Amino acid sequence: MSDLTRPTHPSRELTITSAANPRLKGLLALRRRRTREETGQTLVEGYEEIGLALSAGVRPSTVYVCEALFSPSGRAGSQDIGHQTDLLTRLRDDRVEVVHLSRSAFEKVSYREGPDGLIAVVDRVGVTLADLRVDGPDHLTLLSQGVEKPGNLGAMLRTADAAGVDAVVAADPVTDWGNPNVVRASKGTVFAVPAASATTAEALEWLAANDIRLVVTTPETDLLHTDVDYTGRVAIAVGSEKHGADRALLDAATHRVRIPMFGLANSLNVSASAAIVLYEAVRQRDAR
Amino acid sequence: MSDLTRPTHPSRELTITSAANPRLKGLLALRRRRTREETGQTLVEGYEEIGLALSAGVRPSTVYVCEALFSPSGRAGSQDIGHQTDLLTRLRDDRVEVVHLSRSAFEKVSYREGPDGLIAVVDRVGVTLADLRVDGPDHLTLLSQGVEKPGNLGAMLRTADAAGVDAVVAADPVTDWGNPNVVRASKGTVFAVPAASATTAEALEWLAANDIRLVVTTPETDLLHTDVDYTGRVAIAVGSEKHGADRALLDAATHRVRIPMFGLANSLNVSASAAIVLYEAVRQRDAR
Repeated sequence: MSDLTRPTHPSRELTITSAANPRLKGLLALRRRRTREETGQTLVEGYEEIGLALSAGVRPSTVYVCEALFSPSGRAGSQDIGHQTDLLTRLRDDRVEVVHLSRSAFEKVSYREGPDGLIAVVDRVGVTLADLRVDGPDHLTLLSQGVEKPGNLGAMLRTADAAGVDAVVAADPVTDWGNPNVVRASKGTVFAVPAASATTAEALEWLAANDIRLVVTTPETDLLHTDVDYTGRVAIAVGSEKHGADRALLDAATHRVRIPMFGLANSLNVSASAAIVLYEAVRQRDAR
Repeated sequence: MSDLTRPTHPSRELTITSAANPRLKGLLALRRRRTREETGQTLVEGYEEIGLALSAGVRPSTVYVCEALFSPSGRAGSQDIGHQTDLLTRLRDDRVEVVHLSRSAFEKVSYREGPDGLIAVVDRVGVTLADLRVDGPDHLTLLSQGVEKPGNLGAMLRTADAAGVDAVVAADPVTDWGNPNVVRASKGTVFAVPAASATTAEALEWLAANDIRLVVTTPETDLLHTDVDYTGRVAIAVGSEKHGADRALLDAATHRVRIPMFGLANSLNVSASAAIVLYEAVRQRDAR
């Protein structure tokens, strides 16, 4: 363990060169759901993702930095070095604690390919259903049920952000919104879209209480996803990768719709399904 | 190295219990693009993916099996054991070589989480542009340019299969169609959809020679993706994850279209973009 302050950094900034430093253990522990729940914190890695978190009003408690990875030999192009340095300045101005890591120390805590030298610790994301504000006549919700893969949850968030979704609800999720792989796959949009977790029963009660119609995607119907009306307060629901929507969700649906398929495999990835139906809703809403 | 024939398997089937067996090294070598190009072979892992390859008319040369992983303790549910055994019978009937692996040997060569005890060696997938048959007035192509991540290429194939795309062309791809991670992410649809690789210039020549209109997605336009006509011979093009479509592709476009975005991040995953535009084409074609 060797913590020392190098003269090239502002005097109060910590530098860690040993991969055995206990702070790094604390960072690695945030990959565990239990630690995230106990500490109320999670990790965001990467210039783009941290930038998006800042834009969404998130203030990290600490940012871990390896300026050697800012160089063109790392993932970021030379054009990005300035951006990364600017981001660091912005974080310093916001009085975020800055900890400098050696390359080997940084690579130990990085959880993605081609690290760009920035990892931030932020308050854990995700809200409760009670925190979701439902106002306006055109509130749009994406509801996912039992989705297992963090990559799929993250991809759906990214699409939901782009489509202007007002709330994302994970019913009976297998992972938590703070899972670093969800944050990564979401490209940081997990900070931009209100995202809640709940049981399916709670989610259905919330929909009913807020007069939100429920459109569930399932192969078990003849109604095409393009044949229903997505204006007004609507939730679009997709089921789990393996089992699709369960009986409770199907029974509660205002409409059950299927996405037409013409191929050999007869299945779409759950995040592709969400993208297709969300953008059908965008199309209809834009066309009014 | 210990190869022995166990009495529970048909007498000519090989059993490998040592993780050091040279055949396993040969399998691992197929993860390298160079080996795939030299041998003309690739790997398909999993019951579902191998089944789809068979449905598409692909006959594996060898299948590597670990029946211990067929059990409910593995990824496959108890319902699937029968399915997996049926698939094995079908492969034997097709005179596919069957090699039994111990659990440790299988886990060494498996390249996915939760292996289900089946890996097949098949002829490498992918064709040339000259092999693509363009007939009919409504031929639909998905063109990807410079896509880097195997997971994105595979996801686009899966969506292209579902949308009834006639051909997928990877222009200047960073990976090959036989990449096991492309095969995996495609859920085996790489065997079902004609998939070619070419340079961008070759792809543009092929489009022109076949009277195929080109619709390119890009943020640099005011035309929405829902405002162009996708009937007739059309190619829908998406650019790379980092840089989007290049100048040559944009200049060759019949229409440049953008997918409307309302979020903080202002970007969609490339496979989500492909799904959204392909299914707009499906909607328009169905509505005729």
